[in-house]
Amino acid sequence: MQIIDSITIPEREAKTHKGDYGRILLIGGNQNMGGSIMLSTRACVYSGGGLTTVCTHHSNHAALHSRCPEAMVSDLADIKRLTKLVTEADCILVGPGLGLDIKGNNTLTFIFQHIQPHQTVIIDGDAITILSKLRHPLPDCEVIFTPHEMEWERLSGIPIDEQTPDKNRASADKLGAHVILKKHHTELYLKSGDYKINKGNPAMASGGMGDTLAGMLAGLVGQFGLEDAIQYAVYIHSKIGDQLSETMYVIPPSKIIDEIPYMMKRLEQ
Amino acid sequence: MQIIDSITIPEREAKTHKGDYGRILLIGGNQNMGGSIMLSTRACVYSGGGLTTVCTHHSNHAALHSRCPEAMVSDLADIKRLTKLVTEADCILVGPGLGLDIKGNNTLTFIFQHIQPHQTVIIDGDAITILSKLRHPLPDCEVIFTPHEMEWERLSGIPIDEQTPDKNRASADKLGAHVILKKHHTELYLKSGDYKINKGNPAMASGGMGDTLAGMLAGLVGQFGLEDAIQYAVYIHSKIGDQLSETMYVIPPSKIIDEIPYMMKRLEQ
Amino acid sequence: MQIIDSITIPEREAKTHKGDYGRILLIGGNQNMGGSIMLSTRACVYSGGGLTTVCTHHSNHAALHSRCPEAMVSDLADIKRLTKLVTEADCILVGPGLGLDIKGNNTLTFIFQHIQPHQTVIIDGDAITILSKLRHPLPDCEVIFTPHEMEWERLSGIPIDEQTPDKNRASADKLGAHVILKKHHTELYLKSGDYKINKGNPAMASGGMGDTLAGMLAGLVGQFGLEDAIQYAVYIHSKIGDQLSETMYVIPPSKIIDEIPYMMKRLEQ
Amino acid sequence: MQIIDSITIPEREAKTHKGDYGRILLIGGNQNMGGSIMLSTRACVYSGGGLTTVCTHHSNHAALHSRCPEAMVSDLADIKRLTKLVTEADCILVGPGLGLDIKGNNTLTFIFQHIQPHQTVIIDGDAITILSKLRHPLPDCEVIFTPHEMEWERLSGIPIDEQTPDKNRASADKLGAHVILKKHHTELYLKSGDYKINKGNPAMASGGMGDTLAGMLAGLVGQFGLEDAIQYAVYIHSKIGDQLSETMYVIPPSKIIDEIPYMMKRLEQ
Repeated sequence: MQIIDSITIPEREAKTHKGDYGRILLIGGNQNMGGSIMLSTRACVYSGGGLTTVCTHHSNHAALHSRCPEAMVSDLADIKRLTKLVTEADCILVGPGLGLDIKGNNTLTFIFQHIQPHQTVIIDGDAITILSKLRHPLPDCEVIFTPHEMEWERLSGIPIDEQTPDKNRASADKLGAHVILKKHHTELYLKSGDYKINKGNPAMASGGMGDTLAGMLAGLVGQFGLEDAIQYAVYIHSKIGDQLSETMYVIPPSKIIDEIPYMMKRLEQ
Repeated sequence: MQIIDSITIPEREAKTHKGDYGRILLIGGNQNMGGSIMLSTRACVYSGGGLTTVCTHHSNHAALHSRCPEAMVSDLADIKRLTKLVTEADCILVGPGLGLDIKGNNTLTFIFQHIQPHQTVIIDGDAITILSKLRHPLPDCEVIFTPHEMEWERLSGIPIDEQTPDKNRASADKLGAHVILKKHHTELYLKSGDYKINKGNPAMASGGMGDTLAGMLAGLVGQFGLEDAIQYAVYIHSKIGDQLSETMYVIPPSKIIDEIPYMMKRLEQ
Repeated sequence: MQIIDSITIPEREAKTHKGDYGRILLIGGNQNMGGSIMLSTRACVYSGGGLTTVCTHHSNHAALHSRCPEAMVSDLADIKRLTKLVTEADCILVGPGLGLDIKGNNTLTFIFQHIQPHQTVIIDGDAITILSKLRHPLPDCEVIFTPHEMEWERLSGIPIDEQTPDKNRASADKLGAHVILKKHHTELYLKSGDYKINKGNPAMASGGMGDTLAGMLAGLVGQFGLEDAIQYAVYIHSKIGDQLSETMYVIPPSKIIDEIPYMMKRLEQ
Repeated sequence: MQIIDSITIPEREAKTHKGDYGRILLIGGNQNMGGSIMLSTRACVYSGGGLTTVCTHHSNHAALHSRCPEAMVSDLADIKRLTKLVTEADCILVGPGLGLDIKGNNTLTFIFQHIQPHQTVIIDGDAITILSKLRHPLPDCEVIFTPHEMEWERLSGIPIDEQTPDKNRASADKLGAHVILKKHHTELYLKSGDYKINKGNPAMASGGMGDTLAGMLAGLVGQFGLEDAIQYAVYIHSKIGDQLSETMYVIPPSKIIDEIPYMMKRLEQ
């Protein structure tokens, strides 16, 4: 397992416009957990995603725009519009605050039915738990899972204390997906190999931190090669956390987001 | 009465996750006083509470998420969900902006009926006034009261100008609860003994300051031993207030909240 | 006309609490002009008003709490609650964003009917225009008007280019009220005499600046003697504006508000 | 094509008030793209527009006021009020987040029917695409278009790779309008001549950046001569972007807005 000690982000080319940095669709946030998708959204925008649209419960629209006017919104119950948005997206993130009820199931099923081979789907949070139960075959496109250890147990069937690199690798291969296993030091089981990021700290142990990482990942997938994007997202997220932990005992995820554009600049080649 | 001159907050252990820092349930905020529970919520999150959920009037959801996407919300009128949330919480705060009408009464009664011995309940603001009238026996679990002098008079029956340490101590013992008596210099009547915190200043005399302290307390109870949490909360709250008062004539409670993670880091051992 | 060159704000006494700094009621903000009362509200809280409640159109509640959770809200259409709030307030501000329609008329009439001699009422913005038409006799309590020149023409009958100190003084006497005449350099016609504040600048010429001053005034009336409060409010408002204009071409009123507690501290004796 | 290397903004005159800096009407923001008009609004206010009113879908009101209380709002469906607002405005911006459906068409048609010769209309975003289809004759007043290259292709009929200065100039003349062609380095086809602004960078390639420029332009048109305002808006927007790009890899448009008053001060003569 290769340790990722540093990354270098390529400079943006001069004559580019927002259309060159991806159309991102974020799906999540029910009536109770709208904050999750709000964190993902702002993380996506602050990571440089070109055009960000959010499908969420309509009760979340006002707060979402209040926090992040840079994103567009759509009512998750508006299936016609969801169909259009899924079709147009380069990258789809599904899961943050989605909920585990029938609506969540239907949303995930719908996406699996409509996603196309050239697209990337990131399956996070509740969507992992739903998939662990529904056991849908994965769609024919790039798939990224972002489980913490408990979610990985549900998805892979490997109990937490047996989650060794070898077993995780085998399970990722069987899934045919990229896996970001969030734990003390995050492990990446990518198609190209296994990686570990020796960063991150317990000041980051707070609700919404995973939603933030998922949003960053979505924003970066629109801009960089898939495996680069994954490595960048985890590295930047942890690196900011380590930096903030020098002065903060706990780090509200919103504070991570504020720092993304600055950290990315420092990591620019 | 022992003076608390300084505190030292233990470092977080390396391999921990949000689940190790408590599931906190905050209950309050009617149609008119939603700001109170919003202050408590952000104070809880910024103090490091692991997972924070808020039960409040539905009209408060948008503003709450706009200020603090890190928390989850639930409609206080959704009793089924409230039951589930009360069952799962480690620590419950009830009272900020709850209101003194029949709904407030019912909420407090409901919590008293469902709370379990391993849980902690913090009774603040309107919930103290309600209890002073309803005279319910306290539930069989750790109970913390956070009255100001007038609320303490209502709860203990001791008139403000007769609130001596001895009488307060006797009343706290009779209640079988921990009491944080908010006044010029806050007094703590804990089960282990009496304490005083010689900090705080009149720049902190503004609406919402108590809601902020209550939220901090809830966030800390999820992380530390109960009496440590109480001492930390009052100390940190007053210490930040003293620091900000060097440059601010009055301190809006929101400004206290912004500083919590930084002050906690400075107090880390 | 005496020039006010400097002010000194008295230190807060040690053993005081929020109840010592006034109960302020702010009334305004219809469906279109809710931002006005939001500016007044945060200005009131940041000036140190003890307990601030806002009566406004219900569509403004979410944004108001999102910006200022320290305040309480009430639906302006809830007359029963308005009656209670008017009765309990020390100081009432009416006018910012109130609107000039029948609802605005009714609100002003209602307040005039219910206000009591020990209370102070600040009549600002649309409420001045309404009163200029309705010609109600002023209530038997301290009244402060905060007109700009056009509103003063409406209220006093003096055309803008004839608004000399003598005529203004006579008109203020006839009204039996304190008048803050907002212009290039603001003039105060108080019961004790005439004052001028040689501060302020054209970077402050933007919508909402008057709402901010009115809110500051309400917050200060709860803490200081009436004429002191008026002088402090205008001085602090202009002084912050002058300071910010050193680096800002235009000053959004929200930026004035952010600075109030710091400027007040610098002016503390 | 003249290069604009620097600008100097005239100082505000001392005895001016908000009425001297324009009445601006911003129209846009449907149920899905409200964030666009929120960005335009705050950009307008932070650029110094005297009085800013926004006509938008009612679901956007709370978030708009939460972000920018300095502006007034009106429901776009309230035609009576829209008529009044259009009549009173000095400058009208239409388009950000307007949507391409029948409502968008009707709104643009309505404005074209009611606008008067002394007014200025800025046609941005979706309104350009709508006009490209409807082919309404332009109203008899100053018209500014703010297309990116694709929108300019739709409006002018010139394919992107054939958009030479000569052809653009001819097309602008035929339209009888001012054209701000947003691309790598923005080109201005004004009635007085052609200009280019050699500023801007790919960190600015993100959704909402154009809405921000449009709002700035509206705010400046209320204060300065029309062609000056256009040059100022594009220059300030790009200059801030260049400055922020020194420390930020990507620039969320909200961050551009925060800097406007400071940059304008630095450019003051």
